[in-house]
Amino acid sequence: MNRLSTVEQRQRMRQHFAGSVCLSPANVWDPLSARIAERAGYTIGNLSGSVASHTILGSPDLMLLTLTELAEQIRRITRACSLSILVDADNGYGNALNARRAVEELEQAGASGIAIEDTLPAQFGNPNATRGLIPMDEMVGKLRAAVSARRDPTLMILGRTAGLRNGGIDVMVERAKAYEAAGVDGIVLVGTRRIEEVEAAHAAVKLPMVCGLPDPSITSEQLASLGVRLLQGGHLPLAAVLKALHDTYEYQFSGGARDGSGMSQQVASLAEIESFIDTDSYDDLTSEFLE
Amino acid sequence: MNRLSTVEQRQRMRQHFAGSVCLSPANVWDPLSARIAERAGYTIGNLSGSVASHTILGSPDLMLLTLTELAEQIRRITRACSLSILVDADNGYGNALNARRAVEELEQAGASGIAIEDTLPAQFGNPNATRGLIPMDEMVGKLRAAVSARRDPTLMILGRTAGLRNGGIDVMVERAKAYEAAGVDGIVLVGTRRIEEVEAAHAAVKLPMVCGLPDPSITSEQLASLGVRLLQGGHLPLAAVLKALHDTYEYQFSGGARDGSGMSQQVASLAEIESFIDTDSYDDLTSEFLE
Amino acid sequence: MNRLSTVEQRQRMRQHFAGSVCLSPANVWDPLSARIAERAGYTIGNLSGSVASHTILGSPDLMLLTLTELAEQIRRITRACSLSILVDADNGYGNALNARRAVEELEQAGASGIAIEDTLPAQFGNPNATRGLIPMDEMVGKLRAAVSARRDPTLMILGRTAGLRNGGIDVMVERAKAYEAAGVDGIVLVGTRRIEEVEAAHAAVKLPMVCGLPDPSITSEQLASLGVRLLQGGHLPLAAVLKALHDTYEYQFSGGARDGSGMSQQVASLAEIESFIDTDSYDDLTSEFLE
Amino acid sequence: MNRLSTVEQRQRMRQHFAGSVCLSPANVWDPLSARIAERAGYTIGNLSGSVASHTILGSPDLMLLTLTELAEQIRRITRACSLSILVDADNGYGNALNARRAVEELEQAGASGIAIEDTLPAQFGNPNATRGLIPMDEMVGKLRAAVSARRDPTLMILGRTAGLRNGGIDVMVERAKAYEAAGVDGIVLVGTRRIEEVEAAHAAVKLPMVCGLPDPSITSEQLASLGVRLLQGGHLPLAAVLKALHDTYEYQFSGGARDGSGMSQQVASLAEIESFIDTDSYDDLTSEFLE
Repeated sequence: MNRLSTVEQRQRMRQHFAGSVCLSPANVWDPLSARIAERAGYTIGNLSGSVASHTILGSPDLMLLTLTELAEQIRRITRACSLSILVDADNGYGNALNARRAVEELEQAGASGIAIEDTLPAQFGNPNATRGLIPMDEMVGKLRAAVSARRDPTLMILGRTAGLRNGGIDVMVERAKAYEAAGVDGIVLVGTRRIEEVEAAHAAVKLPMVCGLPDPSITSEQLASLGVRLLQGGHLPLAAVLKALHDTYEYQFSGGARDGSGMSQQVASLAEIESFIDTDSYDDLTSEFLE
Repeated sequence: MNRLSTVEQRQRMRQHFAGSVCLSPANVWDPLSARIAERAGYTIGNLSGSVASHTILGSPDLMLLTLTELAEQIRRITRACSLSILVDADNGYGNALNARRAVEELEQAGASGIAIEDTLPAQFGNPNATRGLIPMDEMVGKLRAAVSARRDPTLMILGRTAGLRNGGIDVMVERAKAYEAAGVDGIVLVGTRRIEEVEAAHAAVKLPMVCGLPDPSITSEQLASLGVRLLQGGHLPLAAVLKALHDTYEYQFSGGARDGSGMSQQVASLAEIESFIDTDSYDDLTSEFLE
Repeated sequence: MNRLSTVEQRQRMRQHFAGSVCLSPANVWDPLSARIAERAGYTIGNLSGSVASHTILGSPDLMLLTLTELAEQIRRITRACSLSILVDADNGYGNALNARRAVEELEQAGASGIAIEDTLPAQFGNPNATRGLIPMDEMVGKLRAAVSARRDPTLMILGRTAGLRNGGIDVMVERAKAYEAAGVDGIVLVGTRRIEEVEAAHAAVKLPMVCGLPDPSITSEQLASLGVRLLQGGHLPLAAVLKALHDTYEYQFSGGARDGSGMSQQVASLAEIESFIDTDSYDDLTSEFLE
Repeated sequence: MNRLSTVEQRQRMRQHFAGSVCLSPANVWDPLSARIAERAGYTIGNLSGSVASHTILGSPDLMLLTLTELAEQIRRITRACSLSILVDADNGYGNALNARRAVEELEQAGASGIAIEDTLPAQFGNPNATRGLIPMDEMVGKLRAAVSARRDPTLMILGRTAGLRNGGIDVMVERAKAYEAAGVDGIVLVGTRRIEEVEAAHAAVKLPMVCGLPDPSITSEQLASLGVRLLQGGHLPLAAVLKALHDTYEYQFSGGARDGSGMSQQVASLAEIESFIDTDSYDDLTSEFLE
């Protein structure tokens, strides 16, 4: 169990953002997903707000998760692996004082990077429309508050903007510039689909960026040259887990063989399970301290 | 979101144990596994101690999980579904007073049944040998304490014995009888492999029983006739999830298509995901209270 | 440890509100304050939002406390005593869906009554002014959502209005009527100072009410005749605790006698402490289950 | 809110132990007690196991508190002040692997020092007798495991021995020497009453020590010369708080003036309360980020 310290995890994330490469972080949400992602070679993990809501509450991404629940989940993840974790802190859970508290809690829980977003929560009377953006000066106040709350200077604070879907490229660019001026360490672009959008943001700010871009014809090298350091993917790992759960319960409930023989190709072996739960490390600890 | 109340969940479990049928509970550990198991048709879920350790801590089953962590996980599960949950409370987390507290916490968290086991924790100087049993009179005190701590009389308390692997059939039978006399509502037999073992326990106690029995030639009807009400399976759902995680992260890390096209047969569809996270119910709530 | 069940605690609170008497609840915030209040004779306790913020976070009442933290505190309190607890859930921690979640969490934690308030959180650009009220139809949606979230029909949901200080008596009355129509079980009036204010509310709604009224010339009988069932006092117990802490640390830090002899009149005796921590009950449990 | 970082808090505690002075730490248990102690001048606080049990659970010190609950309380305290906190982790909550986890959790929560004790939990069949000591080699294994679990080398791990009341001075000395050899940073002596006891321990080990010593004729200078760096007092602050609670609830329940006028000498003023809850700091934050 030679794990990186929290500061080392943060330094690794910061060094990556200071570099010139664009990586895809692993989309993780609990100790085992993070552990297995790390074993696959990942060094950076991302706990997105939607996946956190789905997995902790079993609910859609409706800002129902509390800051305390998110921090507890970060603790569960950082306890189990060395991944540097970037976490979405929604819009900071309220006003600028709440955003400040969000940074305090998530820093304490071991996050390496925290993204705070400018999307309004669902409003009464207008729940299904585009949610709209938090007013610019209010959001800047939130991000300044978030930055001021940081204790460990290696922790990264990112400003996340949904400007693109709430006004278009100009709004996105305006927001990115304002958040850079507010002192954040990076910009997360929500909903980018075309390379021109990324180019516009890169032309406007010097900060490293994070975005998604499903179009497979755009290479990570192209994105890297535009300042993108993390390329967020979709929710493939969770979607795979949900199918595995569905198939297994259906199999078992409909009278599948009790020993699971009908699903032998779809399950991890005992050796793999023992590896994923770190059995060897615990055996070593047992030998060292209990014998 | 028409969910059963906690008392209704407990009544359903109790009625099942009072009946004459043997069911396999779903092996569940978090909101989404429980939700999907319920959708598949299950009414009873089981959070085993080992799976709780694996998923909450990412560790082997070494009694490192705290009672508070287990109770929090039960809350996460019962918040998200109507399954009646049977939970393993290890050996009660200490002495009889701790066992009492375990019942208070897990009852409060919404468990329908709580099993307390007679296995000793790993001891200094003898960590790898069979762990051995908690002395009989101490264990009886624990179970009496557990039963006395219950506030809702519909909650079931079960005595779980590892007597079979710590002395054989006679020890198992002796324990089962003593735990019945202590006032528990059912007996969980650990490690049963042959029908004769179940027969011996059934001949000795009148209580309903829970056990595992991998041998596929033994039918659940046979087990039902021997007083077995729940037949515990292995960890197939978790094993399937771990394989799904492994395959997905390997796929993505090794440069799989960014849109996940190479794994399209192995992931839940967007419609399925939305169903699993209860999107329709939340849409209804939004319409009802936010418009 | 013969404690009332949660349902019994709720029935007692509900019966009190259905009666004709006005009581002062104990202002409590943790296990020992609640335990000692109960020993003094109280049957109903009140965890106010401000005292919860002060004691859990050490901060002013700025809506920085999370729902999870509040629920955890309710669990700590209800674990330790039989008081029926009325808890302030601020404005429901967000929109109507959050208010719904607040009721689910606080009900699960054992609250007997939950008050949800119509005060806006501090807004950017206007932090120090009167905070203003949540728009009427939005607040009605929140309260309807809160009522719909209740699982145990004995749990009381109260609508709390700061209308008096945000518009005057007319606004307060209008709000009280609207909240009654939304289906709440009682109305909490914030900031009442004169009997006429209570009279106006009572003339407008049939629901039982809760308010503060520092003027000592107004008797609880008068208030009872106006439908007031709980008369909230100030924060005297916390103020006394803070002075005790201040005096003790000053005494000790400035070189007071190591045995505390200089403060002997200001501290509980060992026998009192043992009583407050329920030593006898635990001795009984030890005798019953560990010998 | 210029607070020391966790590492700075730990460095301050470590420097104190490396020095030549004996201080009395403040006995604290929650955000407000810690905040007020710090305002009185204290730099080091102590959360004892008994006070943690009393205040978090309202129970006697019977090892019923979970590690998770203790870590949460440490987070509440360290969130609110800059005190360097020494915390009692009982006997490590189980075997050496649990002791390891205790260090991981309490370090993560922000403790500056962690003491692990050699007292056995209450045993079945012998609950009221002296509890006895954990066997020497087992305890040494626990302490080695605890030391190995530390991530931040400035965090202090202390071995706490109840050898004096379980065998006398010789046992205490033997234990102190063994724990020093196991690699701890200091020794805590339980139950010392005479200076000879401290002298014996000091003659045997080079480590700095912590003890209680009610006899007022023994000066802290004497103790300092014997290697004692912290002199633990009794529970005066909690005893004062309990009396304040008792007096206030009795006053209010028996019909004391609603405005508390009869207790005006026994309560903190509004200005004091605002100071204790850090109102000025939050006003500054509000001005800085919300206007």
